[in-house]
Amino acid sequence: MRRVAVIGVGNSKFGNRQDVNVAELVFESVKPAMEDAGVSPKDIEYVALGSAGAGAWYEEPLPAVLAAEYCGLTGAGVVRCEAACATSSAAVSIIYSAIASGQIDIGIAIGVEKMREVDTPTAVEFIGRAGCYLWEFHNFGLTFPAYYALHASAHMAKYGTTEEDLALVAVKNHKYGALNPVAHFQKEITVDEALSSYPIAWPLKLYDCCPISDGSAAVILASEEKVKELKIDTPVWIKGIGFSSDTVNLSKRDSYVGLKATVLASKRAYKMAGIGPEDVEVATVHDCFTIAEIMAYEDLGFCKKGEGPKLLREGQTEIGGKIPVNIDGGLKAKGHPIGATGCSMIYELTKQLREEAEKRERQVPLKNYIALAHNIGGTGHYCYVTILGR
Amino acid sequence: MRRVAVIGVGNSKFGNRQDVNVAELVFESVKPAMEDAGVSPKDIEYVALGSAGAGAWYEEPLPAVLAAEYCGLTGAGVVRCEAACATSSAAVSIIYSAIASGQIDIGIAIGVEKMREVDTPTAVEFIGRAGCYLWEFHNFGLTFPAYYALHASAHMAKYGTTEEDLALVAVKNHKYGALNPVAHFQKEITVDEALSSYPIAWPLKLYDCCPISDGSAAVILASEEKVKELKIDTPVWIKGIGFSSDTVNLSKRDSYVGLKATVLASKRAYKMAGIGPEDVEVATVHDCFTIAEIMAYEDLGFCKKGEGPKLLREGQTEIGGKIPVNIDGGLKAKGHPIGATGCSMIYELTKQLREEAEKRERQVPLKNYIALAHNIGGTGHYCYVTILGR
Repeated sequence: MRRVAVIGVGNSKFGNRQDVNVAELVFESVKPAMEDAGVSPKDIEYVALGSAGAGAWYEEPLPAVLAAEYCGLTGAGVVRCEAACATSSAAVSIIYSAIASGQIDIGIAIGVEKMREVDTPTAVEFIGRAGCYLWEFHNFGLTFPAYYALHASAHMAKYGTTEEDLALVAVKNHKYGALNPVAHFQKEITVDEALSSYPIAWPLKLYDCCPISDGSAAVILASEEKVKELKIDTPVWIKGIGFSSDTVNLSKRDSYVGLKATVLASKRAYKMAGIGPEDVEVATVHDCFTIAEIMAYEDLGFCKKGEGPKLLREGQTEIGGKIPVNIDGGLKAKGHPIGATGCSMIYELTKQLREEAEKRERQVPLKNYIALAHNIGGTGHYCYVTILGR
Repeated sequence: MRRVAVIGVGNSKFGNRQDVNVAELVFESVKPAMEDAGVSPKDIEYVALGSAGAGAWYEEPLPAVLAAEYCGLTGAGVVRCEAACATSSAAVSIIYSAIASGQIDIGIAIGVEKMREVDTPTAVEFIGRAGCYLWEFHNFGLTFPAYYALHASAHMAKYGTTEEDLALVAVKNHKYGALNPVAHFQKEITVDEALSSYPIAWPLKLYDCCPISDGSAAVILASEEKVKELKIDTPVWIKGIGFSSDTVNLSKRDSYVGLKATVLASKRAYKMAGIGPEDVEVATVHDCFTIAEIMAYEDLGFCKKGEGPKLLREGQTEIGGKIPVNIDGGLKAKGHPIGATGCSMIYELTKQLREEAEKRERQVPLKNYIALAHNIGGTGHYCYVTILGR
């Protein structure tokens, strides 16, 4: 298998981006990624554009070729992909495979979402359809806050996890979001503010939920030969990719205190990379709701099952701790433009592994230079885990 | 690069399939593909489901995990992909890359479309958005019959192509569709019937246009090691894949008598396969409109530019001729369930290369066992070319 490296990354400002259309928003991450890699659009052989809500949240139903043309990428192969909230991790995997197989030498994974352009269906309604559309969404009215509230209450009942524990995730991620210039929310919050925010679906309150954001992110990948040819100083290698899925119906699952797709996908990624969870020095995990971050600690093997809240309380997932997590603010504070999130995770970890965080307080100290991105679609309907290293 | 083979194929009946939901329709091709390959769902490591109109033509907006669960594929990695009408050729390419790279050993590409479940937007309106949404569709009202009418009238003006030539494509493809049990239209037509059918967009008449169809098709791919382990008698190897794209705006193109994306994608595929167009013994090409088949002959190199009508008139693209094309009925008579078409082309060519056509009159005589599938998205906005061989 050929080695594949990240050679360029870009990330638009996340937030309310009604100032741009979808192609312009894509350009905001593709242009800096090209400059970062030192390549031109004509060097790109394949484009995988991840977007989940095309034609639903924003008007353009088939955006891939449009965005490619706007970015000067006409002539390259093009595909759009979707894996619910794991959409652009799938895009990274598609480009990785195309290079590792020897089909191409340079490709770009792009993630984009505009979630406010069209009023119907609303973001919450549409995302609700990422679960079991026919039974659990239509018949029982479950939307994603309710799904994750089920997970949270199950975790609380079994392991004694508290509402304060959930609030600690939000406080940590807002702390780092406040330092991240691309984050949707760049302000700190307190535990009291989180606990007193208005209820969404018990035990989840407003500050337990990630926002509805617009944004894009882009990742340029290249073969080892191309890395040498381009004289890339700091290639960040893709060491492992693991993917898995779980049942659409939550009613068919054995347990609600974790996500089996995370366990399976991370095992596959660890095996491919030849490492274990103890080797990971920095991670971005899928904290669409605060409980999701705690379950991810456990399902990824950063601690034993049920010990996520302890890891958090001890500060082990902050910078200086055992395994800093979501030091870009996470989905919670950086924002979660569905299709952009996977590429944005790789953007952040690439910057971290190159020790290029804009502010010293946001740079994780590294020894082995191993990072992990964990991206969930639905409530573990899809999972992609990507391991990066220098 | 590891060799990758098609080891199992399935194709649902194409047509008006309001009798099944999307997951059931997928099952109709996945089950026979599994039986054909002699594998079980648990053997599948990655699923790429191609569907372009999810949430638009049929109600399920995020169908991949749903269909995977219904087919027993839960646990495998899952992604949905879209490349307009080339959607499931992209799915085949994604699974090919994942195997060729060494990430997985067995994967499945699935294509599905239900085009009549939801009334708004209509199929013609939605497909119109696959072109330049903002300018050419919204402002000038161009839909796909009109786009291809532009190509047809340009070809007629430059090369003297006639309305009778266009009709000959329809007559040929209906002849073979009449012999294909999965085809939407299983009846022959005459040149007179084609010429006197009602006008759609001059010079295109009803019989110059493919129908709006529902259907699914599935292709199981495996590594060479797995082919040996499973003792597959008649593996059909993927020899080459080429992809390309062109501008969204037709107004930015140099020429209307052909599709540049076809030229580029086929060059790449021929190069990878180490063959030329003269080596191809049977082909499925993208005949969404009759003119598209004539342009494909020329752009793929089966004849010189402008000589497509001559090749057709001489009967060279029928069985017994130099290069039989669309001997399954093509999009014109077999039908064109957008997302299913690419996989359905690979289904047909796999059957041909194994000499398993259900009727002797539909089996192409082979010497070198080389086949080519050509799948366009939009009016050459996307192109995927796949070359298969024994």
